[in-house]
Amino acid sequence: MTETEFQSFEDTARPEQGPPRLAALRAAMDAEGLDGFLVPRADMYQGEYVAPRDDRLAWLTGFTGSAGWCVALHDTAGVFVDGRYRVQVKAQVAPEFTPVDWPETSLSEWIGRELPQGGRVGFDPWLMSVEGLRKLEAGLDGVVLDRCENLVDRVWDDQPEAPMGPLRTHPDDLAGRSAEDKIAALADELGDARAAVLTLPDSVAWLLNVRGSDIPRNPVPHATAILHADGRVTLFVAAAKLDGLDAPLPDVVDVAAPDDFAGALASLEGPVRIDPASCPVAVADILSDAGSKIVEAADPCLLPKARKTEAELAGARAAHLRDAAAMVRFLSWLDAQAPGSFTEIDVVRRLEAERRATDALREISFETISGTGPHGAIVHYRVTEATDARVEDGHLLLVDSGGQYADGTTDITRTIAIGAPGETERADFTRVLRGMIAISRLRWPAGLAGRDLDAAARIPLWEAGCDYAHGTGHGVGAYLSVHEGPQRLARTGTVPFEPGMIVSNEPGLYREGQYGIRIENLVAVRDAPALQGATRKDMLSFETLTSVPIDRRLIVPEMLTPAERDWLDAYHATCAARLAEGLDDEARAWLEQATAPL
Amino acid sequence: MTETEFQSFEDTARPEQGPPRLAALRAAMDAEGLDGFLVPRADMYQGEYVAPRDDRLAWLTGFTGSAGWCVALHDTAGVFVDGRYRVQVKAQVAPEFTPVDWPETSLSEWIGRELPQGGRVGFDPWLMSVEGLRKLEAGLDGVVLDRCENLVDRVWDDQPEAPMGPLRTHPDDLAGRSAEDKIAALADELGDARAAVLTLPDSVAWLLNVRGSDIPRNPVPHATAILHADGRVTLFVAAAKLDGLDAPLPDVVDVAAPDDFAGALASLEGPVRIDPASCPVAVADILSDAGSKIVEAADPCLLPKARKTEAELAGARAAHLRDAAAMVRFLSWLDAQAPGSFTEIDVVRRLEAERRATDALREISFETISGTGPHGAIVHYRVTEATDARVEDGHLLLVDSGGQYADGTTDITRTIAIGAPGETERADFTRVLRGMIAISRLRWPAGLAGRDLDAAARIPLWEAGCDYAHGTGHGVGAYLSVHEGPQRLARTGTVPFEPGMIVSNEPGLYREGQYGIRIENLVAVRDAPALQGATRKDMLSFETLTSVPIDRRLIVPEMLTPAERDWLDAYHATCAARLAEGLDDEARAWLEQATAPL
Repeated sequence: MTETEFQSFEDTARPEQGPPRLAALRAAMDAEGLDGFLVPRADMYQGEYVAPRDDRLAWLTGFTGSAGWCVALHDTAGVFVDGRYRVQVKAQVAPEFTPVDWPETSLSEWIGRELPQGGRVGFDPWLMSVEGLRKLEAGLDGVVLDRCENLVDRVWDDQPEAPMGPLRTHPDDLAGRSAEDKIAALADELGDARAAVLTLPDSVAWLLNVRGSDIPRNPVPHATAILHADGRVTLFVAAAKLDGLDAPLPDVVDVAAPDDFAGALASLEGPVRIDPASCPVAVADILSDAGSKIVEAADPCLLPKARKTEAELAGARAAHLRDAAAMVRFLSWLDAQAPGSFTEIDVVRRLEAERRATDALREISFETISGTGPHGAIVHYRVTEATDARVEDGHLLLVDSGGQYADGTTDITRTIAIGAPGETERADFTRVLRGMIAISRLRWPAGLAGRDLDAAARIPLWEAGCDYAHGTGHGVGAYLSVHEGPQRLARTGTVPFEPGMIVSNEPGLYREGQYGIRIENLVAVRDAPALQGATRKDMLSFETLTSVPIDRRLIVPEMLTPAERDWLDAYHATCAARLAEGLDDEARAWLEQATAPL
Repeated sequence: MTETEFQSFEDTARPEQGPPRLAALRAAMDAEGLDGFLVPRADMYQGEYVAPRDDRLAWLTGFTGSAGWCVALHDTAGVFVDGRYRVQVKAQVAPEFTPVDWPETSLSEWIGRELPQGGRVGFDPWLMSVEGLRKLEAGLDGVVLDRCENLVDRVWDDQPEAPMGPLRTHPDDLAGRSAEDKIAALADELGDARAAVLTLPDSVAWLLNVRGSDIPRNPVPHATAILHADGRVTLFVAAAKLDGLDAPLPDVVDVAAPDDFAGALASLEGPVRIDPASCPVAVADILSDAGSKIVEAADPCLLPKARKTEAELAGARAAHLRDAAAMVRFLSWLDAQAPGSFTEIDVVRRLEAERRATDALREISFETISGTGPHGAIVHYRVTEATDARVEDGHLLLVDSGGQYADGTTDITRTIAIGAPGETERADFTRVLRGMIAISRLRWPAGLAGRDLDAAARIPLWEAGCDYAHGTGHGVGAYLSVHEGPQRLARTGTVPFEPGMIVSNEPGLYREGQYGIRIENLVAVRDAPALQGATRKDMLSFETLTSVPIDRRLIVPEMLTPAERDWLDAYHATCAARLAEGLDDEARAWLEQATAPL
């Protein structure tokens, strides 16, 4: 079996390392006269992935999840984790740490209970967003939050260096728009603000048509920028990272060292625009101290980045086709294996190998979820050597994975029958499929947001008394983050869909201890085709980007309406037509039977 | 043809009366040193219907719609009307008045354009809500709003007296809960507030288990109340209105004259709770002037009033059954008429006569909408002698109507084929029906609000490029207002549905100049029946209250899914089973064919 290049299966937690580190942190708190210190999972860029030097939460506590907080006090230390990580945290942290159910219990509520009035809790203002601090302070009564140096960094002797991943040029023909054009357009739209501070790496990457390699999975650089109303941009990035660029940065871009960022902020003439949802408190502090007026508004890159250009959509189609061929080769291999003869990790390895065989894979877009039987019901299951399970006869195998290609980012989930599936499994699968088809077929009036459409995917599940505890879909970047805002196909999605936006369509059904089902395609928002007799002209619909068969053995055809059957048969015909060319005989034969009409 | 008791068909507008009245108002403005005066349609109770003495907008301008404003300035007078009234207003007002599209143009925007900086506009603080004033002031820059006496009342010589409609007791066995019990429970829930001011007549009526007769259509009294945290209530109402009560008011209720309301407010010990959405500015002013702290929160009656008791639901079922029998007699009569031999007004008269023949009708619950052919596409069409049209062969006839009975309020819309319907009409009707069935069949997790479910009714219309420019449904009272909050089945509905709430389910499709289609049933929110295999236990569903056949001649059966056909056939079987008993032979024969399976 081939080895993986990207994904690893070790369980990196060493619970026993936590207590001495916690003791060192407490000594530092003492030295500062603090009763507590906040350690978020986030780095200053507020993304899902952090570099090893920024993985302070894991270093301190042992907990390796992708979100959470530690609140270290002198006699207790709470580790705040959400529903995905309730089981995992228990195995990863020593008894000196107390797991706390978050957000059911908020940090402020817990701190208020554990600390007396007048208590002082320190935090690193680079690691907390303006909005995050505001919410935290609103909940606190009588406990003071003190900005201070990062005390974890102070006691972390062998803290790794900051990453120095090279940037590469993201070609204009893939971006569909030059960096000059983007900069000029955004500078024009700053309104009263004289500058906007950009602290999200994918905003910087998008604006300058570059990609980076400082963190896993997301091809973004650790870099910040200031967009000036006069149409110039100051990019703060280590100069050495720029050596490998194919094309020079635009003339309007001035490069400065990351260490110059604070000084540059202090010298800005206001008003200065920041996005409170992502801007570090430290940035707002520097601006305020310098007397600049602050304007709070969304990062100006968010919406134009979300509205993919025609070139980006063409790239997405090509990336999805390439990825689909890899998926089909993988599924064909999978069906040829004897049940019980392979494990979840074998599945991950084989799938990554098929993607790498395209010779175009830059990275996987997130850790592949390969969950068989009961593991499929754990929504964010990540297989390790310790949990690796055999894929047995009668199981459902849930595989959620994606690739980063220069022309696009993919994300796909398929649930596959191992051996003959049970009747309940098939009925459940068909309900999830009906929800997924409902979104695929949807046409809606322009102006609506995810929260207006989310129910469409759930109604067939609700009918059977079921639901899923996650959104129906998230935005996806163009060779950027696989989770990208601001639009979202979920009850929390308030940003109206616009042509060019890409979102996932991934309803699911999870039976704890038994199995999980999720079916996911990516779709792009388009102007809906004109219809005779329409009374509204401004309607939108989805174009399906993903072209991978859906397991027909798991479908109960009688549960589908004629329109749903027609959609599925047409979808499979499209998969067959798009993919047949490049496949070997075995995979082509598999594709043929997998895409036969119901 | 019988005469109607409730509905009239005159066009009451006399455009020529407006200009001299406007001149008198302007003279009064001059005397007060004002540059303008605001005249809302609303009275101090902020409801849909006003007494003749409160119909200031119609008296001044001639415009008789149920919502709007006149902003009278010295050289212009804007009449602000929403989309429903754009055509009507032009026919009703003299050229001295300028219709303004509202809310597209806000009052403040228009005032800012028409008046110079420093301009002063007067308004009656009893007729404007706290929230309304706040919004208006937020939009004004440099124009001052001055509280003042009502200048329309000053110049309206023959202004009618305030209505003196008697109250009647609403029996505990219909309310399902005594007034004592409601008062005690609400007083307990006032929290820090020492009193809550109730200015909505339906809140007062609900709390005290009384009904009133001061305005048309809604059986509510012109009365206000103060709920004290000690469990006592002061009711401000003209004593003479109480003479006809069957049962005395609870001991904890003190009756005071309406003129004592202001004094009682001034003597309250704070904090005092008001609902900014409905509380008059004058009330807040009196409280502030007296030094009371004001707590803003929703009227405490709103939610418990919306959650109908089991007795109210039983009453609603009985009222709907009675109303359905009247509807069936009406529909049977309608089908026996030769197309072209009768008019829209004949339809209204006959339907009201059938309802009155139940001997239980207290009032109609709103003006019956009877729109044939192109009139059906006017969503709030009200037929007058001037517009009355013949119901012709090939027309669709849209009839939206309802009754007020002691045990419940009904609201139903049916669209009926006159002669043989066209193919487009049938396809459109079937799409609307599919949306209406989708809501009827819905089961959803507790906690969701109207905005989470509204799309379900629209998806079948969106598929064909259509939509409707109104919500899918509104709350309905228990022998109270036919439009009742706080829940709403619409994109603006943010209050979660709870068992006992009644809402309408009324998708539609309107082809301007051709025809309109709307199908409306009332439904009640219930705990959903338990299901085998459910992964969520806390789910809700709708119980359909309305039992009137849906025109099968307008349904294209092949467009329905099997589940939709099953629902329709089961619905019709229920109609047949519930109604057969009380009908004469002719109506029973009609019912039998109208409820045959598809």
